[in-house]
Amino acid sequence: GKSYRIASIPGDGIGVDVTVEARKVLDRAAASHGFSLSWQEFDWSCERYTKTGSMMPDDGIEQLSRFDGIFLGAVGFPGVPDHVSLWGLLIPVRRAFTQYVNLRPVRLLPGTTSALAGRSAEELEMVIVRENSEGEYSEIGGRHNRGQANEVVLQESVFTRVGVERIIRYAFELAKTRTGRVCSATKSNGLIHSMPFWDEIFAEISAEYPDVHAEQCHVDALAARMVQAPDRLDVVVASNLFGDILSDLAAAVTGGLGMAPSGNINPMGEFPSMFEAVHGSAPDIAGQGIANPVAQILAGAMMLDHLGETVAAQDVHAAVEKVLEEGAVQTPDLGGKSTTAELGSAVVAAL
Amino acid sequence: GKSYRIASIPGDGIGVDVTVEARKVLDRAAASHGFSLSWQEFDWSCERYTKTGSMMPDDGIEQLSRFDGIFLGAVGFPGVPDHVSLWGLLIPVRRAFTQYVNLRPVRLLPGTTSALAGRSAEELEMVIVRENSEGEYSEIGGRHNRGQANEVVLQESVFTRVGVERIIRYAFELAKTRTGRVCSATKSNGLIHSMPFWDEIFAEISAEYPDVHAEQCHVDALAARMVQAPDRLDVVVASNLFGDILSDLAAAVTGGLGMAPSGNINPMGEFPSMFEAVHGSAPDIAGQGIANPVAQILAGAMMLDHLGETVAAQDVHAAVEKVLEEGAVQTPDLGGKSTTAELGSAVVAAL
Ligand SMILES: CC(C)[C@H](C(=O)O)[C@@H](O)C(=O)O
Ligand SMILES: CC(C)[C@H](C(=O)O)[C@@H](O)C(=O)O
Repeated sequence: GKSYRIASIPGDGIGVDVTVEARKVLDRAAASHGFSLSWQEFDWSCERYTKTGSMMPDDGIEQLSRFDGIFLGAVGFPGVPDHVSLWGLLIPVRRAFTQYVNLRPVRLLPGTTSALAGRSAEELEMVIVRENSEGEYSEIGGRHNRGQANEVVLQESVFTRVGVERIIRYAFELAKTRTGRVCSATKSNGLIHSMPFWDEIFAEISAEYPDVHAEQCHVDALAARMVQAPDRLDVVVASNLFGDILSDLAAAVTGGLGMAPSGNINPMGEFPSMFEAVHGSAPDIAGQGIANPVAQILAGAMMLDHLGETVAAQDVHAAVEKVLEEGAVQTPDLGGKSTTAELGSAVVAAL
Repeated sequence: GKSYRIASIPGDGIGVDVTVEARKVLDRAAASHGFSLSWQEFDWSCERYTKTGSMMPDDGIEQLSRFDGIFLGAVGFPGVPDHVSLWGLLIPVRRAFTQYVNLRPVRLLPGTTSALAGRSAEELEMVIVRENSEGEYSEIGGRHNRGQANEVVLQESVFTRVGVERIIRYAFELAKTRTGRVCSATKSNGLIHSMPFWDEIFAEISAEYPDVHAEQCHVDALAARMVQAPDRLDVVVASNLFGDILSDLAAAVTGGLGMAPSGNINPMGEFPSMFEAVHGSAPDIAGQGIANPVAQILAGAMMLDHLGETVAAQDVHAAVEKVLEEGAVQTPDLGGKSTTAELGSAVVAAL
């Protein structure tokens, strides 16, 4: 059978706990579908940073470039400033491999309840298409008159036509395969350079897709709408920062952060894509065996799908849904007393 | 009795509808408490812009400077680009009058229901303290290679020590009068210049307030938390953009956008402060008499409080709560069939 080379980077905190379980599930799905996953594990993490002064080796990106996929747990740990840990691993990988799409599907899974009152599962299914390579997350900026009364700090956002066009086009293509609706997050009333530009390109590209219903909404109003009227939202396209906020929010209004996967996708396939959970490393509950592995397992299913193993991906989804629906095995965040490993094993058994 | 000079700018859309009702209520409260409000109305709006090419006259700021308070409906109308309407009126007023605090209290009022399942009113009371004079909303930036394949757009965020210190200090002072808890919204993992600076000043100032419980939370996680676990939030301090998003969200998880007032406050009182609703001009329902005037009435109560008329402000609050609790007069967003004017008159009667 076919074999895929996967780089596994469990990272920190519960990233380690959930990755183990997800790998069990993915290996089982592979075995049933006649392919295999050849894992190589990397200890790149805040722990490594504390020992060596860097999150990954100098040739880290080069090493990863030889893989078919990257499976990331989570990075971040108290004592290591976030901007060090993230800009030393997660963000460089996203950028070096032109993973310009961050795809974050959310839906209310069976056996779970929404934080919102009186909403059905159908009203709570959407996908956030987040720009993942530029925008508000830029290295440009700095501090002037450090520590003085007249200190000023600048932080530049950088939007390019190439970057904005490709993410918006991706969202429209995706909408054609779903409900045919796209909503763009903007804030052109406050951010008068970047967002009018974003809106202009959105208008240009929506003209190419007369069959897709296109609308735009200010990010503040859109956040409110996710809570008050999520039913008319399906594909939501957003800049790096807005997509980050809206995808956490979308996860919260559906089944919670323990359930939401995230794909950092290089659509042309010249470079490996990377799959992870939306949640972070949650150091407070790390190593206790209580983290919910569902998001990481579903991230694995996204990876299988991306590798072309569509049926195996669907099976993993179905197995997760079966276990959640039965409700016998639930981690504490789902209201149960089961461990991370028990939930992982239940999904393996359901396969 | 004392008389206060108030500039009323109903603006556009439902701003006009709700301002009329709020004025009725405020005049009645004034009459009962032995003071008066001397209103002067300004037609500054998108309509004016369409006719004259500007939202307000050249000496608009100077005219407003002579008032004790500014009462704003809402600005914005289809056809007038948002960045024109807002930067031609709302934002210049905020900045010219150093209204560096945007105070947005939210709570679940009696007779209304939260979008969240199973939350009590006590869990849903908080106040967003939004920085209102700098940060992400800056005029600095521009477009390079317009329309070309290699087009680049820059948008600068500008944070100053003075600006960040004063808003964070305001939040801590406010927390002392409430539950003694402050949560700061950050995103230092993505925005590596501005937000580490914000966090540093937050840490400095929290050291001055050992009795206030200070924590920080990334804005994405904080948005999720407002939905999944709002109960431990009270004072939330945030930058201009984050405060904008979080305050709409906070309004949505409590009683909805029809209920949330907003004060643009110049704490030292050298300049007039401005009071408005969090919601916008909602052109789709304008002029139909169905807009909910509660947010605007409560904005009026904030104005009375700011003017020192604390008891009158409390009375307005109590009257609104009485009407909502009785539930006989409700606008469509509250599930009823009453008009804007009927709800306004009911509050007047309750006074
Ligand atoms: C209209 C817009 C510029 C404004 C803002 O973002 O400041 C509004 O959303 C608000 O919250 O007052
Ligand atoms: C950890 C952080 C830098 C990251 C981001 O904002 O991109 C995370 O929140 C995410 O959403 O993947």
